[in-house]
Amino acid sequence: MPLGAFPTMNGSVDEVLNRPYEECGVVGIWGAADAAAMTALGLHALQHRGQEAAGIVSHDDERFYQHKGLGLVGDVFSDARVIGALKGHSAIGHNRYATTGATLLRNVQPLYADFEFGGLAVAHNGNLTNAATLRQALVKRGCLFQSTTDTEVFVHLIAISLYATVLDRLIDAAKQVKGAYSVVALTPTDLIGLRDPLGVRPLILGRFSEGGWMLASETCALDIVGAEYVRDIEPGELVVINGDGVRSLKPFADPHPRFCVFEYIYFARPDSILEGHSVYEARKQIGVELARESGVEADVVVPVPDSGVPSAMGFAVASGIPFEMGIIRNHYVGRTFIEPTDQIRNLGVRMKHSANRPALEGKRVVLVDDSIVRGTTSRKIVDMVRAAGATEVHMRISSPPTKHPCFYGIDTPEESQLLAATHTLEQMAEAIGVDSLAFISFDGLYRALGHRGREEANGRYCDACFTGDYPIELVDKEGKLVA
Amino acid sequence: MPLGAFPTMNGSVDEVLNRPYEECGVVGIWGAADAAAMTALGLHALQHRGQEAAGIVSHDDERFYQHKGLGLVGDVFSDARVIGALKGHSAIGHNRYATTGATLLRNVQPLYADFEFGGLAVAHNGNLTNAATLRQALVKRGCLFQSTTDTEVFVHLIAISLYATVLDRLIDAAKQVKGAYSVVALTPTDLIGLRDPLGVRPLILGRFSEGGWMLASETCALDIVGAEYVRDIEPGELVVINGDGVRSLKPFADPHPRFCVFEYIYFARPDSILEGHSVYEARKQIGVELARESGVEADVVVPVPDSGVPSAMGFAVASGIPFEMGIIRNHYVGRTFIEPTDQIRNLGVRMKHSANRPALEGKRVVLVDDSIVRGTTSRKIVDMVRAAGATEVHMRISSPPTKHPCFYGIDTPEESQLLAATHTLEQMAEAIGVDSLAFISFDGLYRALGHRGREEANGRYCDACFTGDYPIELVDKEGKLVA
Amino acid sequence: MPLGAFPTMNGSVDEVLNRPYEECGVVGIWGAADAAAMTALGLHALQHRGQEAAGIVSHDDERFYQHKGLGLVGDVFSDARVIGALKGHSAIGHNRYATTGATLLRNVQPLYADFEFGGLAVAHNGNLTNAATLRQALVKRGCLFQSTTDTEVFVHLIAISLYATVLDRLIDAAKQVKGAYSVVALTPTDLIGLRDPLGVRPLILGRFSEGGWMLASETCALDIVGAEYVRDIEPGELVVINGDGVRSLKPFADPHPRFCVFEYIYFARPDSILEGHSVYEARKQIGVELARESGVEADVVVPVPDSGVPSAMGFAVASGIPFEMGIIRNHYVGRTFIEPTDQIRNLGVRMKHSANRPALEGKRVVLVDDSIVRGTTSRKIVDMVRAAGATEVHMRISSPPTKHPCFYGIDTPEESQLLAATHTLEQMAEAIGVDSLAFISFDGLYRALGHRGREEANGRYCDACFTGDYPIELVDKEGKLVA
Amino acid sequence: MPLGAFPTMNGSVDEVLNRPYEECGVVGIWGAADAAAMTALGLHALQHRGQEAAGIVSHDDERFYQHKGLGLVGDVFSDARVIGALKGHSAIGHNRYATTGATLLRNVQPLYADFEFGGLAVAHNGNLTNAATLRQALVKRGCLFQSTTDTEVFVHLIAISLYATVLDRLIDAAKQVKGAYSVVALTPTDLIGLRDPLGVRPLILGRFSEGGWMLASETCALDIVGAEYVRDIEPGELVVINGDGVRSLKPFADPHPRFCVFEYIYFARPDSILEGHSVYEARKQIGVELARESGVEADVVVPVPDSGVPSAMGFAVASGIPFEMGIIRNHYVGRTFIEPTDQIRNLGVRMKHSANRPALEGKRVVLVDDSIVRGTTSRKIVDMVRAAGATEVHMRISSPPTKHPCFYGIDTPEESQLLAATHTLEQMAEAIGVDSLAFISFDGLYRALGHRGREEANGRYCDACFTGDYPIELVDKEGKLVA
Repeated sequence: MPLGAFPTMNGSVDEVLNRPYEECGVVGIWGAADAAAMTALGLHALQHRGQEAAGIVSHDDERFYQHKGLGLVGDVFSDARVIGALKGHSAIGHNRYATTGATLLRNVQPLYADFEFGGLAVAHNGNLTNAATLRQALVKRGCLFQSTTDTEVFVHLIAISLYATVLDRLIDAAKQVKGAYSVVALTPTDLIGLRDPLGVRPLILGRFSEGGWMLASETCALDIVGAEYVRDIEPGELVVINGDGVRSLKPFADPHPRFCVFEYIYFARPDSILEGHSVYEARKQIGVELARESGVEADVVVPVPDSGVPSAMGFAVASGIPFEMGIIRNHYVGRTFIEPTDQIRNLGVRMKHSANRPALEGKRVVLVDDSIVRGTTSRKIVDMVRAAGATEVHMRISSPPTKHPCFYGIDTPEESQLLAATHTLEQMAEAIGVDSLAFISFDGLYRALGHRGREEANGRYCDACFTGDYPIELVDKEGKLVA
Repeated sequence: MPLGAFPTMNGSVDEVLNRPYEECGVVGIWGAADAAAMTALGLHALQHRGQEAAGIVSHDDERFYQHKGLGLVGDVFSDARVIGALKGHSAIGHNRYATTGATLLRNVQPLYADFEFGGLAVAHNGNLTNAATLRQALVKRGCLFQSTTDTEVFVHLIAISLYATVLDRLIDAAKQVKGAYSVVALTPTDLIGLRDPLGVRPLILGRFSEGGWMLASETCALDIVGAEYVRDIEPGELVVINGDGVRSLKPFADPHPRFCVFEYIYFARPDSILEGHSVYEARKQIGVELARESGVEADVVVPVPDSGVPSAMGFAVASGIPFEMGIIRNHYVGRTFIEPTDQIRNLGVRMKHSANRPALEGKRVVLVDDSIVRGTTSRKIVDMVRAAGATEVHMRISSPPTKHPCFYGIDTPEESQLLAATHTLEQMAEAIGVDSLAFISFDGLYRALGHRGREEANGRYCDACFTGDYPIELVDKEGKLVA
Repeated sequence: MPLGAFPTMNGSVDEVLNRPYEECGVVGIWGAADAAAMTALGLHALQHRGQEAAGIVSHDDERFYQHKGLGLVGDVFSDARVIGALKGHSAIGHNRYATTGATLLRNVQPLYADFEFGGLAVAHNGNLTNAATLRQALVKRGCLFQSTTDTEVFVHLIAISLYATVLDRLIDAAKQVKGAYSVVALTPTDLIGLRDPLGVRPLILGRFSEGGWMLASETCALDIVGAEYVRDIEPGELVVINGDGVRSLKPFADPHPRFCVFEYIYFARPDSILEGHSVYEARKQIGVELARESGVEADVVVPVPDSGVPSAMGFAVASGIPFEMGIIRNHYVGRTFIEPTDQIRNLGVRMKHSANRPALEGKRVVLVDDSIVRGTTSRKIVDMVRAAGATEVHMRISSPPTKHPCFYGIDTPEESQLLAATHTLEQMAEAIGVDSLAFISFDGLYRALGHRGREEANGRYCDACFTGDYPIELVDKEGKLVA
Repeated sequence: MPLGAFPTMNGSVDEVLNRPYEECGVVGIWGAADAAAMTALGLHALQHRGQEAAGIVSHDDERFYQHKGLGLVGDVFSDARVIGALKGHSAIGHNRYATTGATLLRNVQPLYADFEFGGLAVAHNGNLTNAATLRQALVKRGCLFQSTTDTEVFVHLIAISLYATVLDRLIDAAKQVKGAYSVVALTPTDLIGLRDPLGVRPLILGRFSEGGWMLASETCALDIVGAEYVRDIEPGELVVINGDGVRSLKPFADPHPRFCVFEYIYFARPDSILEGHSVYEARKQIGVELARESGVEADVVVPVPDSGVPSAMGFAVASGIPFEMGIIRNHYVGRTFIEPTDQIRNLGVRMKHSANRPALEGKRVVLVDDSIVRGTTSRKIVDMVRAAGATEVHMRISSPPTKHPCFYGIDTPEESQLLAATHTLEQMAEAIGVDSLAFISFDGLYRALGHRGREEANGRYCDACFTGDYPIELVDKEGKLVA
């Protein structure tokens, strides 16, 4: 489809409600040479949080510059002239992931707008739970929407706020939205960071040794550009970064941490440190707990790469069963490889994973993976492992059963499609074709994160995808739209 | 520039004020099979009104479909699948021309927006003279602008109007804008056409024999799809077209015709009939009047193709001097051919025109062109004709001297760059290197259009580019911005 | 289809035999600054000879540079960096036209090859009549073909020639091929031009006032870069251009002129001068002869633009009937506009031409066109003219009836599809729906070219498409392949 | 650079000599449904052997079909229509890697040519050592070269061979070339596979359970399409595959195995089985031998991912030191990410690898990698590991020191740039900044491959990059060109 093709448009609230939930990464730089290039590198380090589009807005004390595109950071910013045209010492950037083909260029963040008080660029990681409700009210008021992103709701709220300063307007907007949001924003003078009152999504503050500040979704983005970790932005905290340093505001009445536990299990990069915990160590420790809880007699422990590797290592160490790379991941898999016939479609998961027969043949295998969603991928992997000669396959999962969808920024199918929501453990084991199946317990999970167990951790994490305990009101979903 | 690259952004009113004036063509179809394809064909016939971008929005009783792109209509809609995806029996389309490289995709019309009352698509030919003033006020009110087009001002006024129906909102918006505008708009039920109270830009109504209606900037767009001409939309008239036929509204207090005389001289296609006059006949008749007013002894009458052809034919017939195609136009000239060196740049106009030496050598030549703007092109053509052996060159121009810029939708440079604004007739003749120079008189011009002369035509046309008599207030230009 | 997609390949001789005949333009420059840019401009002036692909090879005394692409010259060479990368003071270029979608990049000329004696680039306008026969012999000998062009046959013959110098090898090759060929070739030291012994296709020599030489298919290519016309290369002449000037060789035993008369009628640009005759004057004079031979009572003379314009002017002058632009050509027609439905397909020719109703309504019309091939286009134009209100339509054609295909470089359908090959004059008139139809006589045609009539011109032109008298043996066609 | 841009051309033998050495993967399918799709999947599994271009030629009993492109297999064949257009039950394919930007489309394999006896497509993995010498002779003879690949030398030798059948011609050609070559070729009836007399590069035979045969560089390509491993093609063996099954020819006098030992160490995929050995097991066993030979007191064993992982695992098991993923690889690194400033360039290797601080901080680290080439990458990784807090870094390399370039198909820099060629072990340790450095011994390496040590393996592998003992004559390099 040529430049500018928008397949269809439709203003119905239904579509907005059913849009794919976004997973994202954000970066902000203030006061550093090559701010746009640094931002691009940070986005590159956060590529695992969103691979379908990327954008950067920079400012050079005179004007804003912008570049956005569909694809990986390395593709969108592959031309040195593009980076060179993004002048200035401050910049914000965004990676975007969406589950359908509907990724339109107009949805790519950061969003930029001219206001009475000047320009403002905004990028955001997370999901608003009252976006559709607010959008309906804003449209009623005469606001014109150009995208289907939550971020534009934010921007309109800023535009129509009666407060005078951009800061007060941003706070005004933040108080009206509900949901998970880690926001970075850029004005002609300031870099602003904001985390929702529960701090569901991460946001990290870093500093350059030669001066200048950095905000990013994960510490791995600081590492790639050599920025030093300062601290995590606190839940409900707003930071204003400029020549005077970092000013902290706490505009919310009752912030308290409910950090997303799934960031530890799967979503964050293993070399990141979130809320003081090493993601890698957390995953390894879950493997240790899993081995204690659900040990089994076997010949090899095999991870489903890459996310299952640390847990499998922990399981192997704790169980004494040898660790083997029994499954090889093909790192050249793009999203574009079209499988043209039924015969080939059946080859399925083998595009991404292949069995390492010598490590599996004639072995009793403990297979360690991070989660079971629909179960179809698990089934294919189990079949592949058996076809390579495994005599037994015991699946161990480093998360509790995923029974509920996420509304806070992780892409998950609806409840009816989650295997654990509709099957007992035994039925699940049968569905994926394993000899035994076990998930980490809540106690084990939270012990691995340094608590004494589930009770102690209670109310300190968002684990709604496992428990259904949603800490932020699901306004749009609960039909308050029509109210 | 890669997908999605917006070189720079800047919200300053200055830039908005200095934006290139747009020349455009619009088409609307209601109740016809293949509405989008018909619209594309109509835009193709109107390609001379704008070559840099094209767009179509269609509706199929359920939803809107949109496709836009930079380039000619035939390029933007070259793929049958693109046209096929624009479903429905109603559609509107737009051709756009802009004089600088700043043609951004987000500026391409029609503009579409979701309103509380449903979707609306709007396209517009002309120029608002208070667009910057209104824009400033709208931004102050919290409106977010995505483009730099006048059309978006219109759309925001519709969005914030307190009237209930889309029709009342559209009229409300129309009453607030000043300028030249021929608008086509599409709602889920209606095709709407609107001409400003002076009817500066054309808008024509046509009908399909098998049912269905068409609006277009010129009759040549009706001809290409076999639609029958019904009538010109009247100045200040708004038509609502749907299953009940064509309903006419006259929302303005004091409409009266001030049709753009330059449409006859240059801008419209010769086979179009505007306000009851054949453009081709008008141009030929101007040539006749020119010969009467400014006859000269010569051997050949040579047009500067293509726009000078009919006037040169009229001149030849009236003067008895043979008509010759002494200049050949190269029809393959694209806009993209970059001339890399000074030497080649000096070859200049020869990219588009070449001298037909046998028709010029040793001849006294009457050269007929439609207008002199900066004079640089005229100079190059005269030099080329002399280099081909013409012994005398007498330039005859089928318009009065262009002394003032147009603010109503024709791209012209500012006054200081108009040769006629700063030179006497003798100085102009010298500047372009001719033996004699004459422009059509106002009396001659209006006689050619069927009036008894200038007096009778007075106040019935907009001829501001020749007279400086601007019939519509130049709000933005006159600095009312700061008021 | 992505870069490098070759839909299918097939080595059969049948396909090679049935390949589309090519129409082409060639340019060569020696000893001029900006040689590649000058070549691009020359190709631009020759764009009417081939619009589907363009290529340039240059040499800077050290190495060769090459750029080729599909599309118009202005598109292929739109980037100043591309022209800039084609360094050197000598260059050759080629425009290519092919009638089917099979234009592959590997077929785009000039062809370049490394030989034992160094590099050589070759481009050619025309058609070899023993290309398939030679190709078969070369393949048998172990030659590998990369393209389906005649030019590659030439290049292989040069490669395997036993002569020592490139010049002798080129002559050796030329003596083995049969057909129409105007060749330009570039070696590290020389620009070479060669015209076949009958000189069927044109080739012109020009000179730059500041030094340097130019070869081109037509004089219009000299004009655009300001080169002075020196002379036409003679039939069978080979010129070697380098620092010593222009050396002329006559390697063929019996050269004599059989210049293609269709170049005058249709193919060449009107402002070109070929073999001493102005194309424009020739066409006008044909119109004069037509009026004398086939005068008719009528109200207007209307050309089918653009090629019919000069003849119609001549007809009008000779007959005293007013000349009118009753048909307008839309110059924005690209090749890519896909007509998606039957309804729209029926609108047919109107994409390119539209009727100018005021010049046709109620008139008896003499319609002047250059030729009738299949008759379908003529029929559509006649219908359009009648629909615009013409009361009578008299078609006058500025060529004799086209009864035979061309094998020498003009694209024509096979005999069975030529209307004149299968219909009497009366049947043709009925088929295209005119009140009367007349073609120029051979006597009239050759009188218009300055001869006393057909007899005097006999054997001085190739008019095989009208007479079937093919002056060059049709080796491939006549089945000598199997011999 | 647009379609068809070939930056420069130059026929000098020097350039041909200095062309980048190619690493490649090949696939062939005979008698299987969806042969092209299967070939694409096989190439996808072999993507690690070449990432810059891919091509497939298929045959459907009537004609050949071809598609080639620059980029990954998944990009070149991303469009289902492209695969769909490659009809037939037989196909061959090729992945290509080249170290410079000079990857031209015309160099992409398979090469196809029309011969007297019909069409033939050829693809080849390896490097000829007398390609330039042969090429010079062929050009002298009148052969035209279109590419700079060794494969085209092969194809020309086939074209000019005096033998009658394609098979005899192929053998004739094979006897004239020297070097490492695993060739797959496709005729209208047969799939042909050929391995050079020393079998330096791998070539595997597989079978589909539902009928049909497959050739591939590695067994992992069989696995992805579910083909069963039959056997390795033998050194010097030529197989002809058609409806009669697999016919084996042994055209060479003295074949004997000298398989490339570097395929085990680095180049092949770990899940492949080559010459009966599991690559994964071989690598793990090298790690075991390394630990035995060069044990060191440390806290963690850390692989440089991905190729260092199995050896590090073996080292960890044998040494009892815990295995940790102390370095994380970013799998989204494309080749296109341009690092725009010096500051960013210095960040270097961090684009691809990042330190996992919690696994390194305060630890004595054994770092396991597959080889040291220039040493620059090693230095950056060591620095990164130290910056993450490692107190000691001990580097262990799973190959002997790389002291000589490969001329048989593995891309290596010239000798002067190989760190081991110019430095002692102590100097190397200092250059890369480690506390200790050890390479596997030859005895250890060959023990890991199942031999009793170096002596037993002597003459059974090509280990020229470590020993300088080149088993195939380096004709071009040794200046026999001028003879």
